[in-house]
Amino acid sequence: MKNESVEEKRRRLLAKAKESLSTAYAGEEHSLIEAINTYLQLEKIENLAFERLEEWYSIYFPELKLNNHEKYAEFVAKFGSNKKSASEEELFILLGDRERAKEIESSIARSIGREPNENEYKNLLELANLVIGLSKLREGLGSYIDTTARKLMPNITYLIDTKVAAELLSKAGSLNKLALMPASTIQLLGAEKALFKHIKYGSKPPKYGILFKLQQVSGSGRKRGGKVARIYATKISIAAKADAFTKRFIADALKKNIESALNKGAKGAKHG
Amino acid sequence: MKNESVEEKRRRLLAKAKESLSTAYAGEEHSLIEAINTYLQLEKIENLAFERLEEWYSIYFPELKLNNHEKYAEFVAKFGSNKKSASEEELFILLGDRERAKEIESSIARSIGREPNENEYKNLLELANLVIGLSKLREGLGSYIDTTARKLMPNITYLIDTKVAAELLSKAGSLNKLALMPASTIQLLGAEKALFKHIKYGSKPPKYGILFKLQQVSGSGRKRGGKVARIYATKISIAAKADAFTKRFIADALKKNIESALNKGAKGAKHG
Repeated sequence: MKNESVEEKRRRLLAKAKESLSTAYAGEEHSLIEAINTYLQLEKIENLAFERLEEWYSIYFPELKLNNHEKYAEFVAKFGSNKKSASEEELFILLGDRERAKEIESSIARSIGREPNENEYKNLLELANLVIGLSKLREGLGSYIDTTARKLMPNITYLIDTKVAAELLSKAGSLNKLALMPASTIQLLGAEKALFKHIKYGSKPPKYGILFKLQQVSGSGRKRGGKVARIYATKISIAAKADAFTKRFIADALKKNIESALNKGAKGAKHG
Repeated sequence: MKNESVEEKRRRLLAKAKESLSTAYAGEEHSLIEAINTYLQLEKIENLAFERLEEWYSIYFPELKLNNHEKYAEFVAKFGSNKKSASEEELFILLGDRERAKEIESSIARSIGREPNENEYKNLLELANLVIGLSKLREGLGSYIDTTARKLMPNITYLIDTKVAAELLSKAGSLNKLALMPASTIQLLGAEKALFKHIKYGSKPPKYGILFKLQQVSGSGRKRGGKVARIYATKISIAAKADAFTKRFIADALKKNIESALNKGAKGAKHG
């Protein structure tokens, strides 16, 4: 390389830089990060689309109340052009609930809404299909996330929900970065705004970020929730090191540690 | 009705109230309002979905730059599993531009991105199809809005873009309400937040709301834009009265008025 010209050197270094960039994107990690970000965005998109569908269709059937987005959309797709055509049996098949089917049948009978005209129904149908499609898309993406997160983070996903694990990975930026984070940082990943407010304005410090999505944390109330999040963060931090560096499966022991810490905490809370 | 019992009276009044509610929702107006609200929401949703697709696919082909959402999504759907399979001719067919096709072909040749694996591509494909589907859905809804707005508001839509007309209708709540609004209110429809800030904090008063979407307004700059919006609002207010009450077509004369007012204003601006 001693005799290479400036141009040759430039090319060689450029090729090297390109190669290292390629390597950085070569792993499935980045794909998983994009997948979880897309998943979270699709949740929002589905809500927005459902809101529009529900508001629009409420012109024609304001009495219809169904909390399940997909069922609501299926109702519109199947019976939206003429709700009176829905038999109790068909409603039962759609909802899987005899009581609700009867309720909706009687709502149909006394509804004050008119039927949509052909053009209106065409648009409602497409909107309903969008909601159904989004729901299916999110499901498919969800199972990709589950599989890939389990593969890349066998230890972490043994301890917590795969989607929460993927979200932690996404916030950290890479598995290596996640593995190098102290437990206290992992505990507060996703709570950056609240932490900033705390530092700048002296508001209450956050006790958890993404980890709040764990049922064990959210179900514990604000006071105990912080402790539970801390317990999880400590073990996730160890699990991340195993996933990133040693590639050994140690999560079995970690899970037992968590359980006993949670039990101890619960007893402590009772005594206190 | 003299001899009716309290119960009978209650039923009669309830039936009457229901009937008037049904009448209120009977017109196509409400469907049009829902349609334009959905249209605006779909614009946002499409942007969100496209952002996710672009970010995700940029792992595999970071050099790809296409401003058109649908074309980008079509590229991913067709060539996303193996970008090297795209011939210049196929790229030309997709893009309708020989220069761009050549550029992209050479980007493919020197790309630092790897190809997605099967599972990754499956999710990318579905996301790409979502973007394409959203774009088509919005197109279909757009043509429904055009037709219905022209039918319900023949005068207003003769003066301004059908979607802007539908947005004014949506903000006003009904054609009757729009027809009863003074021109100054129509001018500022959609600028409620800025108006509130002006009243409460003394910031600059807004000069236009939804009407800013008219090319004639947005293309005029802030100073003259306010005047142009005012000219339009005045004539829209008259057109709305004709659409709501007299049902006569008078927009031909109104359009000429607008044009001469715009010309006068333009001359005045030159002299001033």
